[in-house]
Amino acid sequence: MDSLDQIVMAHGSGGVMMRELIAEYFVTSYGASELQSGDDSAILRVPDSIDNLAFTTDSFVITPLFFPGGDIGRLSVCGTVNDLATSGAIALWLSMSFILEEGLPLADLEKICRSIALTAMEAQVMIVTGDTKVVPRGNGDGIYINSSGIGVLDNREALSGRNCRYGDKILLSGTIGDHGIAVISAREGLGFSTGITSDVAPLNKLVAAVLEAAPHTRCFRDPTRGGLASTINELAEQSRTSMVIDEAEVPVKDAVRGAAEMLGFDVFQIANEGKMVAVVPADEADAAIAAMRSHPYGKDAAIIGEVCSRPAPGMPAAWVRTALGATRVLDVLVGEQLPRIC
Amino acid sequence: MDSLDQIVMAHGSGGVMMRELIAEYFVTSYGASELQSGDDSAILRVPDSIDNLAFTTDSFVITPLFFPGGDIGRLSVCGTVNDLATSGAIALWLSMSFILEEGLPLADLEKICRSIALTAMEAQVMIVTGDTKVVPRGNGDGIYINSSGIGVLDNREALSGRNCRYGDKILLSGTIGDHGIAVISAREGLGFSTGITSDVAPLNKLVAAVLEAAPHTRCFRDPTRGGLASTINELAEQSRTSMVIDEAEVPVKDAVRGAAEMLGFDVFQIANEGKMVAVVPADEADAAIAAMRSHPYGKDAAIIGEVCSRPAPGMPAAWVRTALGATRVLDVLVGEQLPRIC
Repeated sequence: MDSLDQIVMAHGSGGVMMRELIAEYFVTSYGASELQSGDDSAILRVPDSIDNLAFTTDSFVITPLFFPGGDIGRLSVCGTVNDLATSGAIALWLSMSFILEEGLPLADLEKICRSIALTAMEAQVMIVTGDTKVVPRGNGDGIYINSSGIGVLDNREALSGRNCRYGDKILLSGTIGDHGIAVISAREGLGFSTGITSDVAPLNKLVAAVLEAAPHTRCFRDPTRGGLASTINELAEQSRTSMVIDEAEVPVKDAVRGAAEMLGFDVFQIANEGKMVAVVPADEADAAIAAMRSHPYGKDAAIIGEVCSRPAPGMPAAWVRTALGATRVLDVLVGEQLPRIC
Repeated sequence: MDSLDQIVMAHGSGGVMMRELIAEYFVTSYGASELQSGDDSAILRVPDSIDNLAFTTDSFVITPLFFPGGDIGRLSVCGTVNDLATSGAIALWLSMSFILEEGLPLADLEKICRSIALTAMEAQVMIVTGDTKVVPRGNGDGIYINSSGIGVLDNREALSGRNCRYGDKILLSGTIGDHGIAVISAREGLGFSTGITSDVAPLNKLVAAVLEAAPHTRCFRDPTRGGLASTINELAEQSRTSMVIDEAEVPVKDAVRGAAEMLGFDVFQIANEGKMVAVVPADEADAAIAAMRSHPYGKDAAIIGEVCSRPAPGMPAAWVRTALGATRVLDVLVGEQLPRIC
């Protein structure tokens, strides 16, 4: 491959080649006017009457870069948009910072930039600032992306896992495990990949719809790394409650369930990138689930459990009621299951 | 080395070990209350009467992680604080996102976290959100850090390189080349390292002092990758002016000049991490330089050049008047000189 077809160290030098790369790839693909200004910071006008911002950051190191249903570019927009959405904020502005490995094909970078642009358009967020570094072959893996994001809270208290209360219902916006199984099957070339695609998607519009239908929603959390198990444990811990999930109510595709069993994975611990957990007061649960189901990314939404009282000292806080009527602990992942899933 | 002394893949799993790492290292070292909340976004109160924010991002891939005068932790705070300062914004909030390589000694991570904490305290910024990823041995190089930052513009137009005007003076806050030479000598174990340390420092207080003394300052820019040459070329291009630097006025330490000559480097192209270029109206230049010199990080500040009229079509925009009275083009770095300098 000719050196003009791929990333070379000089693309990270701060000199001519870096400026050309920024102009030809990043600004061309998704450059908001702030990105084109040439200054070191983007200047952003805070909408009137806004008192509170949400701020989040995420680095993405997924392998492979392209997988069924998505790629690292779409993932890096969705991950940050979804983290902002969990607080109830309206995502407005993102940064995109790249760590490129020497030898990355420029054709891959172009595809990733286009994917970033399309996903940002779908989510209606602007990419306003960025950075580019290059590391030598063997010190990276194609491309790592950090995206940080700012959202605004429009006359609303920030949502927090601390707010969950006894009697609240736990909602899930759709099937779990799709992302993790799609990525591992693409990575390993496994045969069961047929039909399983990542769920990676921006959920800010779905969250906004739920908030409108169920204004007293306590919190949202996207069950990414560590899966639903980590999310439920974290929410229970934050709110000092216990939570019980009905296994039979949790949507899982048959193909995903089969693949997880074959691999020895607990489907509750597999990463998702296009699902949202919501905790809502019982009397708003029906409205919330209807709002979720009316959104394309929430058509399989279900009420999967409820918030119970504070656990006895030393007792686990997150439980699963199995299909057979037994109850078991909803374990947090202890070791490491699927590295570099996001 | 025992696996408990170093980063393992499970530290990036989203499970128990990641939560312990965050609690024991990041929250303990520098956790603002927002970082401890356990939610996916930090909620930040916008000070009253603020209309505009500055937002910036930077990833740091420097090698070695520890070098004379600093480390990747101090660098990751200063780089982002300084980028915010260039717009005239007051830096308030930072994110810290880590890509850790399997095998990184936890003792190194602890030193880096302490350095982040001390530098954030010096710069008076809060670290409010973060992220942790782990990549396998051979897909990283110890630790890469992204820091993004938000600052506020207090009743002030954002400064921009576009604002430079004919007749303005160009100021530099001190000696150039220190960072690049310190890092390359530490990396290669070269003999000329004696006494040369990186200048890495947060310059937000210096910038604030200059703005108070010279309220019509046009812009600031920190001459990092690509060095002073890139900065001057960028400012000239943004403002459609030409700029002339007096070589004899640019402060360079003898040891740095000697090392640069030995290595065949142009000192104007070497990266700095604790220096600021300011462009100010001629009638405020003396006040601005006095303000710089009154600050510990600006004691060697000098007026190094001036802004001239628009260059003739096709002519270069950035020039150096040499000590011998000749004039040469101030070339932007074309290839690659010092990879992974920041």
